Amino acid sequence: MSEFRTEHDFLGEMEIPNEVYYGIQTARALDNFHITGIPISTEPLLIKAFGYVKKAAALANRDCGVLQPEIADAICKACDKLIAGEYLDQFVTDMIQGGAGTSVNMNANEVIANIALEILGHPKGDYQYVHPNNHVNFSQSTNDAYPTAFRLALYHKIENFIESLEALQAAFAQKGEEFKNVLKMGRTQLQDAVPMTLGAEFKGFSTTIKEDIQRLNEAKMLICEINMGATAIGTSINAPEGYPQIVTEHLRAITGIPVVLAEDLIEATCDTGAYVQVSGVLKRSAIKISKICNDLRLLSSGPRAGINEINLPRMQPGSSIMPGKVNPVIPEVVNQTAHYVIGCDITVTMAAEAGQLQLNVMEPVIAFSLFSSFTYMENACYTLTNKCVKGITANEEICANMVMNSIGIVTSLNPILGYEEASSIAKEALATGKSIHQITVIERKLITQQKWEEIFSIENLINPKFINS
Amino acid sequence: MSEFRTEHDFLGEMEIPNEVYYGIQTARALDNFHITGIPISTEPLLIKAFGYVKKAAALANRDCGVLQPEIADAICKACDKLIAGEYLDQFVTDMIQGGAGTSVNMNANEVIANIALEILGHPKGDYQYVHPNNHVNFSQSTNDAYPTAFRLALYHKIENFIESLEALQAAFAQKGEEFKNVLKMGRTQLQDAVPMTLGAEFKGFSTTIKEDIQRLNEAKMLICEINMGATAIGTSINAPEGYPQIVTEHLRAITGIPVVLAEDLIEATCDTGAYVQVSGVLKRSAIKISKICNDLRLLSSGPRAGINEINLPRMQPGSSIMPGKVNPVIPEVVNQTAHYVIGCDITVTMAAEAGQLQLNVMEPVIAFSLFSSFTYMENACYTLTNKCVKGITANEEICANMVMNSIGIVTSLNPILGYEEASSIAKEALATGKSIHQITVIERKLITQQKWEEIFSIENLINPKFINS
Amino acid sequence: MSEFRTEHDFLGEMEIPNEVYYGIQTARALDNFHITGIPISTEPLLIKAFGYVKKAAALANRDCGVLQPEIADAICKACDKLIAGEYLDQFVTDMIQGGAGTSVNMNANEVIANIALEILGHPKGDYQYVHPNNHVNFSQSTNDAYPTAFRLALYHKIENFIESLEALQAAFAQKGEEFKNVLKMGRTQLQDAVPMTLGAEFKGFSTTIKEDIQRLNEAKMLICEINMGATAIGTSINAPEGYPQIVTEHLRAITGIPVVLAEDLIEATCDTGAYVQVSGVLKRSAIKISKICNDLRLLSSGPRAGINEINLPRMQPGSSIMPGKVNPVIPEVVNQTAHYVIGCDITVTMAAEAGQLQLNVMEPVIAFSLFSSFTYMENACYTLTNKCVKGITANEEICANMVMNSIGIVTSLNPILGYEEASSIAKEALATGKSIHQITVIERKLITQQKWEEIFSIENLINPKFINS
Amino acid sequence: MSEFRTEHDFLGEMEIPNEVYYGIQTARALDNFHITGIPISTEPLLIKAFGYVKKAAALANRDCGVLQPEIADAICKACDKLIAGEYLDQFVTDMIQGGAGTSVNMNANEVIANIALEILGHPKGDYQYVHPNNHVNFSQSTNDAYPTAFRLALYHKIENFIESLEALQAAFAQKGEEFKNVLKMGRTQLQDAVPMTLGAEFKGFSTTIKEDIQRLNEAKMLICEINMGATAIGTSINAPEGYPQIVTEHLRAITGIPVVLAEDLIEATCDTGAYVQVSGVLKRSAIKISKICNDLRLLSSGPRAGINEINLPRMQPGSSIMPGKVNPVIPEVVNQTAHYVIGCDITVTMAAEAGQLQLNVMEPVIAFSLFSSFTYMENACYTLTNKCVKGITANEEICANMVMNSIGIVTSLNPILGYEEASSIAKEALATGKSIHQITVIERKLITQQKWEEIFSIENLINPKFINS
Repeated sequence: MSEFRTEHDFLGEMEIPNEVYYGIQTARALDNFHITGIPISTEPLLIKAFGYVKKAAALANRDCGVLQPEIADAICKACDKLIAGEYLDQFVTDMIQGGAGTSVNMNANEVIANIALEILGHPKGDYQYVHPNNHVNFSQSTNDAYPTAFRLALYHKIENFIESLEALQAAFAQKGEEFKNVLKMGRTQLQDAVPMTLGAEFKGFSTTIKEDIQRLNEAKMLICEINMGATAIGTSINAPEGYPQIVTEHLRAITGIPVVLAEDLIEATCDTGAYVQVSGVLKRSAIKISKICNDLRLLSSGPRAGINEINLPRMQPGSSIMPGKVNPVIPEVVNQTAHYVIGCDITVTMAAEAGQLQLNVMEPVIAFSLFSSFTYMENACYTLTNKCVKGITANEEICANMVMNSIGIVTSLNPILGYEEASSIAKEALATGKSIHQITVIERKLITQQKWEEIFSIENLINPKFINS
Repeated sequence: MSEFRTEHDFLGEMEIPNEVYYGIQTARALDNFHITGIPISTEPLLIKAFGYVKKAAALANRDCGVLQPEIADAICKACDKLIAGEYLDQFVTDMIQGGAGTSVNMNANEVIANIALEILGHPKGDYQYVHPNNHVNFSQSTNDAYPTAFRLALYHKIENFIESLEALQAAFAQKGEEFKNVLKMGRTQLQDAVPMTLGAEFKGFSTTIKEDIQRLNEAKMLICEINMGATAIGTSINAPEGYPQIVTEHLRAITGIPVVLAEDLIEATCDTGAYVQVSGVLKRSAIKISKICNDLRLLSSGPRAGINEINLPRMQPGSSIMPGKVNPVIPEVVNQTAHYVIGCDITVTMAAEAGQLQLNVMEPVIAFSLFSSFTYMENACYTLTNKCVKGITANEEICANMVMNSIGIVTSLNPILGYEEASSIAKEALATGKSIHQITVIERKLITQQKWEEIFSIENLINPKFINS
Repeated sequence: MSEFRTEHDFLGEMEIPNEVYYGIQTARALDNFHITGIPISTEPLLIKAFGYVKKAAALANRDCGVLQPEIADAICKACDKLIAGEYLDQFVTDMIQGGAGTSVNMNANEVIANIALEILGHPKGDYQYVHPNNHVNFSQSTNDAYPTAFRLALYHKIENFIESLEALQAAFAQKGEEFKNVLKMGRTQLQDAVPMTLGAEFKGFSTTIKEDIQRLNEAKMLICEINMGATAIGTSINAPEGYPQIVTEHLRAITGIPVVLAEDLIEATCDTGAYVQVSGVLKRSAIKISKICNDLRLLSSGPRAGINEINLPRMQPGSSIMPGKVNPVIPEVVNQTAHYVIGCDITVTMAAEAGQLQLNVMEPVIAFSLFSSFTYMENACYTLTNKCVKGITANEEICANMVMNSIGIVTSLNPILGYEEASSIAKEALATGKSIHQITVIERKLITQQKWEEIFSIENLINPKFINS
Repeated sequence: MSEFRTEHDFLGEMEIPNEVYYGIQTARALDNFHITGIPISTEPLLIKAFGYVKKAAALANRDCGVLQPEIADAICKACDKLIAGEYLDQFVTDMIQGGAGTSVNMNANEVIANIALEILGHPKGDYQYVHPNNHVNFSQSTNDAYPTAFRLALYHKIENFIESLEALQAAFAQKGEEFKNVLKMGRTQLQDAVPMTLGAEFKGFSTTIKEDIQRLNEAKMLICEINMGATAIGTSINAPEGYPQIVTEHLRAITGIPVVLAEDLIEATCDTGAYVQVSGVLKRSAIKISKICNDLRLLSSGPRAGINEINLPRMQPGSSIMPGKVNPVIPEVVNQTAHYVIGCDITVTMAAEAGQLQLNVMEPVIAFSLFSSFTYMENACYTLTNKCVKGITANEEICANMVMNSIGIVTSLNPILGYEEASSIAKEALATGKSIHQITVIERKLITQQKWEEIFSIENLINPKFINS
């Protein structure tokens, strides 16, 4: 047997190694696109999603009576193998390609056709029995099959990311509880403000992430709107009557994802709004988590010439020259991941704006950006949770000393003394280095020691009551 | 009477012109911040929003028994004047300032105090009766009053923008109806694809904007979460018991906006997530509208060496040198506005990520970016609607000729002839310049003339039926 | 005399108020473009630049024998008035417009024509004597006149910005000198590192800005490449032989700016590379100055619960609720300005990428972005210099204490004790709170007290010598 | 022999597989950082650069008398192996890591130490003879060694990219020559303007890329400024006298790259300005090449319902449903690569702005962004050159017909007839569909047929002469 088979398309012929399952169009793509060197198999959820899409299409074509049941059946079996994670190495197309996903779709069509051929007892390449275009791609175009597969994969990426956020949120919530009695100085604009607890600070981190989970769950639903049956540009040319609805139902049943058919298939075929929204919400998470990491680095700064309110787990020696130095490497790597994600949002923006007329040809770079962003951020969240947040400890004494040594506590005297008198006390404290207690109670005798103790009790500092006389 | 009054704060004294209603802290801000030269009065909705916030606070303080009813009443009357649009010229602070909004909040506190003083028959500056901090700002901090006012203003900006989108959407829908029988060539990747109608194309524009309106309505609700009563950092220090809930209710009643109190005031005080979300959704609209404008410019290109399917209204001579040239100036100005908005989203991103610990000090530049973005995009939408979309006409004959002259119509023969035969016909047409009809019906005799007419009837081109034998 | 004159263009007639100097095409632009509400007169350097361009063109046309000397002379006199800053209020076109600058160019052509008409004793609008297109715009197109004027204005904007950077650089250099003996702890990754001086830190700020000045001076030269004589698309259609060179020489002579004629006028007419470069270099400055402001805020944090190594001048009360609080409002406003500039770079990027074929129609938004960015950053630099940097003082004792109390000083013992022994000392210090001196000299007796004093003398800490035995 | 060796650092011990050359700190990094899954070995130029840096340091240490010649020699031999591309698989650290490059530097230190140990006949891990920190990293810190290695690698990346640009530029120049007599319609704002040649258009592409090559060559020089000898923060702590100069000279000699020592080592150690500049210039190239690709797609649009002036090489079938369709897949993939690069510039921006005090800890993500951006853009340029530009052909007849059929040619009549008469002709042509010749010569008899032929000769259309009578 020859090592090669000859395949052809309307541009000519090519020799294809017999052992590979992809065909001539994939081979051309492999030749045409050397950009990232990263094959689409790097994103197994995308390949799996093509299994779903092509299976649903085969079933719908069978139901519509335009595809013979035996062929449909063989296609379905081939798709099941993709869904099971097999044949991943056959998906060789570069992550960034021209052609609006055509090469990815054809890669799937060809691999599925050849697997199906083998199932039916035919050699690879004998496309008269199962043809990549005429059978596997029947009633479809790249312009509906590709975005639909992309969306299914993205749905799962979002779900996975949400799980990582939930872990992070839980870790922060747990620390919020653990530190709920640790009194510390709150800071606004990096200047000492008024007291709070370290627990409230960490609970705030938990709250803010919880809100992002809600936003992601909303954005996830936008991704469920698909355009199967739109075919080339949304007019459903070459798709049998009723096919769009039937294929959507099959897809919903197979995947368990609540996909719905877009109402306006022309619009849906060129629209990238949902990707922009998802990218925006992911960016929102990245911004917030980056802000939290900045805070963790600031609060753990020092140990002696910084704030030093908390200790992060010590993960690795921090310097090749400075002994004993340990750096906040986990928050740092998360910050950088956030920077990456924020950059990707601009890539998505550029690509989305570049859509023209009936299609957005830039979807592959949108997919590349979103896939890598979600993967990296998910990794970053687990890293932050497990290698940092869970092991954070508080330097309670340092925290407490900074409160009573502060000028900011004078704020509590406003309702009693008025803003102007309080300002005068603050001014003197700042100039002389004296404590607020010294000036207020001992020197100016503005309130009694008893009143002072009432106002500055730990309990009142943590949950301030309004005391104005 | 002197032309100046002397005011003081804890940093010293200043002479304030007697005729102005703002006081020393505003004067300092005026001196400190010369960046944009654009005063906050440029955004009347923000000044109005401060009227709402300060009025609600006065009422809540009165209800809580911490503010004398007469003073509360005078403050409310002063606020009503701001709400009515008066005293706008007293809001002189630069749009971009340091201090996390303190200068804007104090500008409002001082102006309101002095109006209230006059109402009570006192001269400006006689703050023992109504004090900017002790009375107008009572139970508040910049850190709750400022973001709340910002959010109220933003809510109205979003609503106004939605109205402009509705106008644009309606104009596109109307054109979709008007052009519903204009057959034209659909294009993917700038290459001829398959037929569609011009009406479907314009209906698609309408659909995509309708979806943005939904997204904006969702984002609008996020803005309704406020942190009144958080005071300095969210611990509600110096606010009386129950005040946060009461002030929120007053604010809801006064404004008619469904504001709700944030559950975690510590988190809410430093969180800028809602701004990021709003900016992201606005960017999404900008991206889509920019894409539409790109399409309009492309479809109207020519008139003789371009696509020339549609005519845009002729708004102005297009060249200082080329006679008769008219350019698509309206879509062009909208594109540029979209570019501006996309840039602003990065400003918002940078500023949001720069929040530290208990506050985000960069809110003023977020406000500046969002206010200008919404204003410009709203203007752009009305401009696009009224000066372009409404007057678009179709070149029906040109559109129709391009369809029948195209190779893309061969796609309709796929189900009958198969993809490979159809490809062969296409290839010949491309090489020889012959029409698809010539090759298929006359030369290769693959289908009858009758079948041809069935497939390529106007009706079937517009709403393709699946015909496979 | 009527209050209106009738003007016409090839789209029809309009009534123009007699008192205004602009004509029908400006009036159309005024009607068409309501986006920012900011007229181009906000950028006087641009109007002045049009004076230069139109004057140089008139002189060149006269020299080429295609424009009568009397008309050329009247145009020149009119241009001189624009150069002198007169008639600014006649430049009413919105900063963002469609038409690739046509409206701005016509605004200039019309105003100049009418001023010239008055100089020649004719009423405004009597264009047979001096015509906006046939005379003022002779041998020009918007596509060469507009970008050339833009570039001249930009050249001056860059120069002005450089001046503000020089002031900032000098202020930092002065502080570098002032603080050259203030020993302090250096920090990497917010963790204590090794000693340095505060002077070296501020000198570093000066150095980094000096480098930006060099980059800006380089970028400025790119802006000097102009395309006068390219006319519509770079083929010099309708320009007399030799005109491009002659007009360039006139322009160089009039402005003193070393403008040069682009070698490839086709390329130059659609190229926006120089704007992208300038925007990128401006962004670089913004990034660096923002980083410096972050550092200033960090170093002045506290005063009691922060780092507190330096004091910024106290510019205004920092809180409407917290007495005595003073915030770093000047660095804060500069940070926000940097965020704005970084956003604008994306606007410029989008607009530059959107160029098509022989022209980039998006230049107006590029101009708007660059003009506002330069203005705001220049303002920010002067504000930072005069209201912050010049008044910074050092807390020398706090700085010094943090050094000797630190663990990081153990690094100096590496060459003598080796990295591993030094690490062990550091580890013990961290765990027990002991000082490095205590462990090394007293307990472990690894070096003598004399050696210790040699290594940790002020002089050696400031300029470390290599001591390895 | 055991399969593992035990290594320790100041945080504890770890078992390291005996066959690997990296040690405990790399192992910790491997454990800590799972973000991209892409190891630093993906960038062989970076590993090679570490070979250069560590070799130069060993030589300088030997010259300064602080490192025994035998050890220096062994280190140099080990470095030579890295420079030769060996041991690449030992560089396992994730591309994005925390720690400001410490893990990458230690990965290099450990691998070099173990190779050197084997050269000296010692087992791996027997660090008393050659120690990663005490010997390989002697007189260095991550904070000088890492950025220096990064810069050397970046220098080569820029050079490689320039080569790809030169290929692209040459291809465009060649087409400029080939098409120099192909008359076509120039277009501004997508509207027909005036005639030009296809050759001039392609020559313009060549010119614009040539300018980028100049900018990149300038930016490349900024990267040559290094900070070897700065050690931890720029104070040169623990480096022997004269070492910074000596190591810089060695590095220049070994690499042939004109590296220079930064004047202000404190500044240089935290400065990322050169990366921002390089990223900005790379972005500039990406913007321009993206614009060119947009043009290529536009000019080749059709073939029947588009502009169709040029043919791109047909690389692959363009549709899974539309037979015969071929898409401009090569320009499309290049556009997307440009979008990626533009996004990365924002990542670099965020990371650069996030530097704090004496270091920018975000350098790894800057390196990741720049390395991938340069690699992808280099690939994209070769792809564009070889798979698209070289094979472009012109549709000369179509081009020529569009010129004579256009209205824009009326511009040539301006100098003779004036702008207003020409406008009137244009207007009639537009309204009636008549040709300019018909109206001007035959109907209005404004010029003679002879004059017409002079003005509209091919030669005059290509190089317009000024004809005004």
